[in-house]
Order: sequence, then C-alpha cells, then structure tokens
Amino acid sequence: MAALEDYLEQNREQFKADLFELLKIPSVSNESKYQGDVVRAAEWMADHFRQIGLETTLYETEGFPIVYAETPPVEGAPTVLVYGHYDVQPTGPDSDWTTKPFEPDERDGNVYARGATDDKGQMLTHVKSAQAWLATAGSLPLQLKFLIEGEEEVGSQNLYPFIEENRDLLACDIAVISDTSQFGPGQPAITYGLKGIAYFELRLTGPKQDLHSGTFGGALMNPLNALTEMLAALVDEERRVQIPGFYDDVTTLDDRERSQLAALPFDEQVFMEQVGVEAVNGEAGYTTLERRWARPTYDIHGIWGGYQEEGSKTVLPNHAGAKFSFRLVPDQDPAAITESLESMLQDICPAGITMELVDMHGAPGVVVPLKSDFMTAATHAIEKGFGHSPLFIREGGSIPVVNALHDRLGVDTLLLGWGLDDDNTHAPNEKFSLADYFRGIKASTYLWQEISKISIEVPEDVGS
Amino acid sequence: MAALEDYLEQNREQFKADLFELLKIPSVSNESKYQGDVVRAAEWMADHFRQIGLETTLYETEGFPIVYAETPPVEGAPTVLVYGHYDVQPTGPDSDWTTKPFEPDERDGNVYARGATDDKGQMLTHVKSAQAWLATAGSLPLQLKFLIEGEEEVGSQNLYPFIEENRDLLACDIAVISDTSQFGPGQPAITYGLKGIAYFELRLTGPKQDLHSGTFGGALMNPLNALTEMLAALVDEERRVQIPGFYDDVTTLDDRERSQLAALPFDEQVFMEQVGVEAVNGEAGYTTLERRWARPTYDIHGIWGGYQEEGSKTVLPNHAGAKFSFRLVPDQDPAAITESLESMLQDICPAGITMELVDMHGAPGVVVPLKSDFMTAATHAIEKGFGHSPLFIREGGSIPVVNALHDRLGVDTLLLGWGLDDDNTHAPNEKFSLADYFRGIKASTYLWQEISKISIEVPEDVGS
Repeated sequence: MAALEDYLEQNREQFKADLFELLKIPSVSNESKYQGDVVRAAEWMADHFRQIGLETTLYETEGFPIVYAETPPVEGAPTVLVYGHYDVQPTGPDSDWTTKPFEPDERDGNVYARGATDDKGQMLTHVKSAQAWLATAGSLPLQLKFLIEGEEEVGSQNLYPFIEENRDLLACDIAVISDTSQFGPGQPAITYGLKGIAYFELRLTGPKQDLHSGTFGGALMNPLNALTEMLAALVDEERRVQIPGFYDDVTTLDDRERSQLAALPFDEQVFMEQVGVEAVNGEAGYTTLERRWARPTYDIHGIWGGYQEEGSKTVLPNHAGAKFSFRLVPDQDPAAITESLESMLQDICPAGITMELVDMHGAPGVVVPLKSDFMTAATHAIEKGFGHSPLFIREGGSIPVVNALHDRLGVDTLLLGWGLDDDNTHAPNEKFSLADYFRGIKASTYLWQEISKISIEVPEDVGS
Repeated sequence: MAALEDYLEQNREQFKADLFELLKIPSVSNESKYQGDVVRAAEWMADHFRQIGLETTLYETEGFPIVYAETPPVEGAPTVLVYGHYDVQPTGPDSDWTTKPFEPDERDGNVYARGATDDKGQMLTHVKSAQAWLATAGSLPLQLKFLIEGEEEVGSQNLYPFIEENRDLLACDIAVISDTSQFGPGQPAITYGLKGIAYFELRLTGPKQDLHSGTFGGALMNPLNALTEMLAALVDEERRVQIPGFYDDVTTLDDRERSQLAALPFDEQVFMEQVGVEAVNGEAGYTTLERRWARPTYDIHGIWGGYQEEGSKTVLPNHAGAKFSFRLVPDQDPAAITESLESMLQDICPAGITMELVDMHGAPGVVVPLKSDFMTAATHAIEKGFGHSPLFIREGGSIPVVNALHDRLGVDTLLLGWGLDDDNTHAPNEKFSLADYFRGIKASTYLWQEISKISIEVPEDVGS
C-alpha cells in the first residue's frame, strides 16, 4: 500500500487536471442544446477508462450512452460494481455564478463548477483509485465494473432496461456509489437510507387565450388562482400531505432510530445559519433530521404562468403550471401515490380548468442493512482515507439506481459520500472540496483492498 | 352636419393611415427598452394636434410627457375634457401574434396591433372628430380639452399630480373617455360603473440560495410552497376573499339593478365559447355579469420561482413571487384593503420565510349617475354614430383617472366604449374594428354638437 500511497501523493496535480477537463464539458442532460456535449462527456469517460487500462465499451441507448468498463475477474474475491453519472443539472443563468459553471475555478481549496460534486468529482475518485492500482500493482485485488450513465438528472430511463438486459455483464457482489454527502466537514458518512421520489408536472389551462382581468375577472376561473389552490390543498397546516393513503405504507421511525438520529452531532442553529433561514419548518411532531431523512416531504420546484416582468399587467392568463415532487420513505409506493394524487387533483380541479398531470419519474425509498462485511470494509477504508470513522446517516435525496441494483442484480449498495451539504448541488456555485477529492481517492484505493479480503459464498453447483 | 358627414366619409383612408402611423410606434411604458418610443408617441400626438389646429403643449413629467391640446372657449357652451393614453401594454413574444404587434395589419375589417383598441384607436376617434369640425366649420361648438398621457398602463403616477397642479387649465364640465367596450358587436354601450383596483406584488425569500430538495426538503420552508399556501388562503371555497374587512364597505346590489343586469342580452353559452371555457366560475350566489361588473374579484396575474424549463430539476428555490390584484366595487377603500391584506399575509407567512408586499397601484370603484343631460347627449350621439341606442353597462375594469377627474376637477366622466370584449386587450393579437373606428369618429362628431346644446350653470360671482 505504500507504493499506492506514493502514487496518490505524486499524481494529485494530474488527478485535478483530469477532473477539471471533465468539468469543462457542459453535459447538461436536461437541455437539448447541450446534447452534443453530453455525448462528448461519455466519450471522454470511455477514452479515460481505456487510457488507464480498463476494458471499455460505450453502449448506445435511445438517450445518452452508457459507459461500461471493467478490470479482469479475480478468483475468490468479490466483484464490485461502481455506479456514477457523467451528466449534470442545468445551471440557471451564468449571472447567478461567481465564475462560469463550465469554467472550473479553484478557490479556497474547492473547485467551483456544475457537476463538481454531483457527480463528476465524486465518481472520479473511484476511477482514479483504479488507475492507482493498475499503475502501481498492475492489477486490482478484485474485479471492478464501472457503470457510468448520462441520464441520472433526467430519470435514468435508459439505464433500467440496460441493467435488466445485462444482468450477466453487471453481476456483482456489492455496488458502490459516491453521490451523497458527508455529515459535515471532516465527518465522513455512509448513507444507509435514501428517500424515494415521485416527481410531477401539473399543467392547467383556462380560457383559450390570455384575457384582460378587468373585463373577465370573476366570470371564469383563472388558471393561476386554480394552481395555487390545488397545490396548497396537497398539504395541511401541520404540513402533512393530504393525498388519500399517502402515509398508509410509511415505515414508522422506531425509538432506537429516533434516539440514534437525536445523538448525531447536528447543530440546528449552525444549520439555519448555513442555509440562511431564521427558522426551520416542516411536518409537525418530528425533528429536523427526522423530517429530512425519514419522513416524506412535498416540495414545489418551479411554478410559472402569466406576467413575470417588471411593472404590473392585469392579465388573466390562459395557462399555468408547476413542477413538484414528494420525497418518499420505505415502503411508500410511487405508483400508488401517483394514482391517488391524480384522482385527488381531478376532484379539486375547479370548473372551467382542464388539467394534465405528467408523471416525470418515481422511485421508492430504500434502507441498506447496517451490519455486513461490506459495511465494515467501507468503514475501514474511510478511516484510512479520511482519518475518521464514518457516521451512519440517512439522506433526503433519492438515488433510484440503488433500487434498480437491488431489484435487478440482487445487491446492496455502499453509499460513500465525499460531498458536503453546502456544495450547492443543483444550485449556482456548485463546488467540491479538493481535499475531499483526494481523501475520497485514498479511501477508494483502500476500499478495493478491504473488500478483496471478504470471502464470498460460492454458489452451489445448480447442476448437481 | 351634412358637410361634416361628407368630410368623415371622404377622409376614411386618411383617418386609417393616421391610426396605423401611431400604432407603429412601440410605446410600451412598462419596458425600459421602449422608453424612447414612448416619448416618440407623445411627440407624434403633439405634432398631430398642432397639424389639425389645436393649441398644444407637451408637458414633461418625471416619467413620460403629458400631451395637452385645446380649442378656444365657446361662451355659454360646456367645456369637455377628453382623456386618453398613448402608451400601450407589453406584447409578450412576437411568436404569440399572427402578425407583429407593431406592424398594424388589416384583416377581416379589423386592424391588428398592440394599442389598436387600448387606447390609440379609441382615443383617436375624438381627435379625428375635432379635426372634422375644424376642417369643415373652422371651429367647434364647445371648448375641447385633450389630456393624453403615456403612463396609463403603469399606474398614471405623474398624471395625478399634474391634474392637481393644473386644475384651472383642465377645468371642464364633463369628461369623455373611450377606453371601454361595447356590450357586443353592434351593441354600443355607455359604461356607468367601473371597478377599482388594488394591485400587489408579493415577494417571498427562503434560504439564502437555491438548495437541493433531497438534502434540504422537509427541513425548511420552501418559498414556492409558502407562495401557493398564502395566495390560496386569500380566497375560500366559495371564492369569497378572506382578507378581514374586505366586504365591509361593498355596496350591495339592489333588486332593481340585479333585474336590469339580468335583462341584458347576455348569452352565457356564447360567452363561454368566446373565451373557450367549459364552465364559468366565481363567487357563489351571483350571476356571471354580477360577478364581472358589480362584485369584487381576485386574480393572480403572474407567478414565478424555481425551475421553469423542460424536464425535472429537484431544486428548493431561494425565492418566489407573484403579482395579483383585487378588483374593487364602490365603496371599497384600496388603502384600507392594502393594510388589512399586508397584516393578514404577515400573519400567515410561514416561519423561515420573509415577505415583501409591494403596493403597485390602487383606485376605488366608481359609478356615474345615469340621469343627466350629458348622458342624454351621449345617447343621441351614439344613436347617430352607430345607428343603435346604447346599452348602459358596468365594467370589471378600472380606469383610475375617472376617480381622479371626479375628486380633483369635480366632474363625471362619460365612458363611451367603441371596443369589443374579444379585442384581446392586454393579450396577443389585439385588434380594433375599423368600422367601429369610423362609427366612433361619427358619434364623437355628433357628441360635440349634442353637448354644446346643454346650458351650463354660470357660477355665482364669488366676489359679490
């Protein structure tokens, strides 16, 4: 391991340069103008895997390509599947950023760029660790398989059939994903619980065109008024979601987990300062960490309609719309919730308004067993990489691929978060700590060694 | 009058050409990029008044100029003040228009352009009638004063002090405004009741920047969720406004007026087809015409916040906002309503959200006496111009200047509407019927004669 550690030390500048190169590609999967760039990012990944010595294939899909790369099988050692994504979120206007989103800038020990933490920086830690093993030892102590997609930010619609159709190719003993956060700076974490999601767009249409609110106001339903009423009706004053049956399958938080969450070093005052609010707020009867990690939530992500420019315009607009989602906990079923939501919205849709509910994407929540050899291996690797034992946390975010890997390949996922909560994921000025990038690479380097020690059950000969 | 009628007949093409010339000036008072064009429209008006022989002054204000023009006093005859505005509403994207908004296009007997009906076309009818009198008879049978402003679509903030400071200049016996609608095609109308308005912008701020809804959802209040809840709370299920005291001063509709409104030839089915809705909708217990004309209403005009592009983005946005207004009836007081609204919103503003309520503009509703010599004169003039007696209607729209003229100059206003409800005022494809333009000019030509017959009370010599 000394040779490996030396290699990591000597190649820091190169690791950084590789990350910056990838960050310069504006691979926004959600905006059609960047389509060529998203493909370019896939090609960059494939080239990069080949350069460091992995057998690599670029799989075309109906959407963006899936990059697959692997090292050779190692008898008696587990196979690890690393998942990541090379696509990024939209950036919003450049003017909201201190430096341009696709011109990575190093400030205060961080790299600022769209995708820095989500997920290019975090994903690359596992690529760089593989590179270190190959360059130093000539091989890895276990088989690594990389599954890197380009549609994570738009629902991974081509990934799931790909996994389904390539079970043999992707067969493994454990999956590893770094697309989550540490508990805090210097407090690395393994995330054992993730929320699911049900994401929707609601489109309302009223009169056939914009009307003057003086002449027509009061005569007919304004789609904007309808929109606010319908979206507000989805939650009550205690911020409990009002969709019939919404809480029916929610796994109740038991006392043990509640005390465990309460024992985490979470400072609510610091948290409020960090996000810049004077009060926390959410479902009555639960702590802030419980609400974030273990209770379903309802957030509106975007809303539009009518006149948004300066000054006043007395328009009664023709249409209005919104995007919103529910974060789900085990065992809520996104499909059942979608059905109940649609039926509720149809019921409360005011006369004179037609509605369309678009089901954008959905995935159930998941909890990974805390007691396993893989968790232990990851714990040791993190101790080596970060110098601290990890905290075991849950997350409010959704990583639907964790469900897919579990359901289709039968494996659990180690969610090893190298990011930080204030990395501005999905917001302007996204960043990633370069120290954490290097610590993540080191932890990953040790992870392959730790996991390689786990003896895997050899399946019985089904032919006998 | 025969010579006048001949003149009107012979100059139709010229009247149309003048209108088209004015419509080509993009005098959008609400968008700073058109600032120079708004001034150009004022200069066009002043030049035009001078060309047809009126004594004209362009008054500079802190905003856009006020054009004042007059004919000489006529002893024993009333003085009429004609108000109009040369500014227009924003157009929205050109792609929403069949032909470009500032390239007037004649189709099916209409001229299509922003400002065609609101208010350039309607206003010009009174300028052209003055021109006809001056060209034919060399003078008018009464004194005409024109007060044409360029800030009607942005709240007329410089007009009111101007009226206040120029009471002598503007002194008159009656005001005339054409900025309203007929009851229907071929059904000219005099509007005797107008709603007032209280227009607001609500701005909500949550966390100091956009956050990831997975990481932070449930922990703190989302400004978009807050916005929908607060705006929805302003109205109940029967669509009654929930601001404390909102209905306290509302003048109750008496049985006589209700039967009169019910007797108007209003076909609800035709109305629904015209606006393209399958149902009317509004405050419980009132007919559609009552709600439009005689009951206060609440409309949201614009709403924004978060992610509005294609696809899905799981952002918890930093801020959200909306523009909305209440249309008021006599004797509701916009200032009292503003105060009560602000206090209610502060009460219901969720913890963790800061709000700012901007009072954009306000004006009380007004009802003009139906029985007066001026109403009779207008009735006769309309019969001459349109070949039909006018219907007496109310309007849901607001013309705050009517209040200002009443309060500051002590005069009532004749609201003579030449427009149509489907003229797309404030919407794409605004239009004005050219036949109504010519009929309006003819009615206006007769109006000066009819009003000139009214003997005005000579004020007692206050010095004696």
